[in-house]
Amino acid sequence: MQTGVPLNEAHTEASSREMQTGVPLNKAHDFQVRKLEVSDNSKGFVELLQQLTVCDAISDENFEARFQELRSLGDDHVICVIEDTSCGKIIATGSVFIEKKFVRNCGKAGHIEDVVVDRDYRGMQLGKKVLSFLTDHARSVGCYKVILDCSNENKAFYEKCGFKQKEIQMAKYFI
Amino acid sequence: MQTGVPLNEAHTEASSREMQTGVPLNKAHDFQVRKLEVSDNSKGFVELLQQLTVCDAISDENFEARFQELRSLGDDHVICVIEDTSCGKIIATGSVFIEKKFVRNCGKAGHIEDVVVDRDYRGMQLGKKVLSFLTDHARSVGCYKVILDCSNENKAFYEKCGFKQKEIQMAKYFI
Repeated sequence: MQTGVPLNEAHTEASSREMQTGVPLNKAHDFQVRKLEVSDNSKGFVELLQQLTVCDAISDENFEARFQELRSLGDDHVICVIEDTSCGKIIATGSVFIEKKFVRNCGKAGHIEDVVVDRDYRGMQLGKKVLSFLTDHARSVGCYKVILDCSNENKAFYEKCGFKQKEIQMAKYFI
Repeated sequence: MQTGVPLNEAHTEASSREMQTGVPLNKAHDFQVRKLEVSDNSKGFVELLQQLTVCDAISDENFEARFQELRSLGDDHVICVIEDTSCGKIIATGSVFIEKKFVRNCGKAGHIEDVVVDRDYRGMQLGKKVLSFLTDHARSVGCYKVILDCSNENKAFYEKCGFKQKEIQMAKYFI
């Protein structure tokens, strides 16, 4: 597992990115890649998800209830986060859950969901780190594949992470 | 829930379909739509999955182990089957598992997987019945959406079931 690995990254092009995003890059960042912790509700985890889709603020009580539900699934549902420890902010995340099948000789498939990198931290390969964490987890628990759905605009990013387009995604919304 | 509902279907065009498939259709079929049972390993369930993808025969021991693993998930993983009770054969199936998220206000998404209708029973709306069963289940447990991945060739079928294309599916295979 890649949990708790501090990633000291020295960046080039710091000044131009700093101008674009407001994130001070003229220093080495301390990025920590790890599993979600219950205290991350106060570190901007939900605000990060709001950059992805509809996600109102979650009370600490509701956050902990969902957190415990997911934790009870153990290795079958893992949420990866990256924290910028210099400011205590969650700046990237993604999840993977493990589907147990009968096909493929009672095989298992990893489903990657809800991948997002804070808009102020894009271009730093953090998405790739999240994907590696989730993919390595799926492989380590014996999955024969990992799959995800994405927009056409993000296809090139996932190809760089070793994914290939296979099918199309169909959806039916109830609300 | 639609479990255990016998579907008496009188078919027209029986003689031409019978010639194509070998399935006698000049009688009312008794199709039972229900959840998977552990005894379905002896009713052609795995042979049906082999029409979908790689799936070697599964020993009764391994089948029951996976069956119990999935049953322990309760409403969070449901496999629908249709049995032709006139011959005791499983002739259609599909599964749905419920993903618990933080986005969408701690929402839930249903993932439909491994839908297949026996080639001798196609054109009888059985796929639609499987989809309805799985979709109704997802709605009943509070999902805000159901999603699935399919080939371009099957897109029209899912559109008839009320699905719309949303994204593309990316996959990485380990084996």
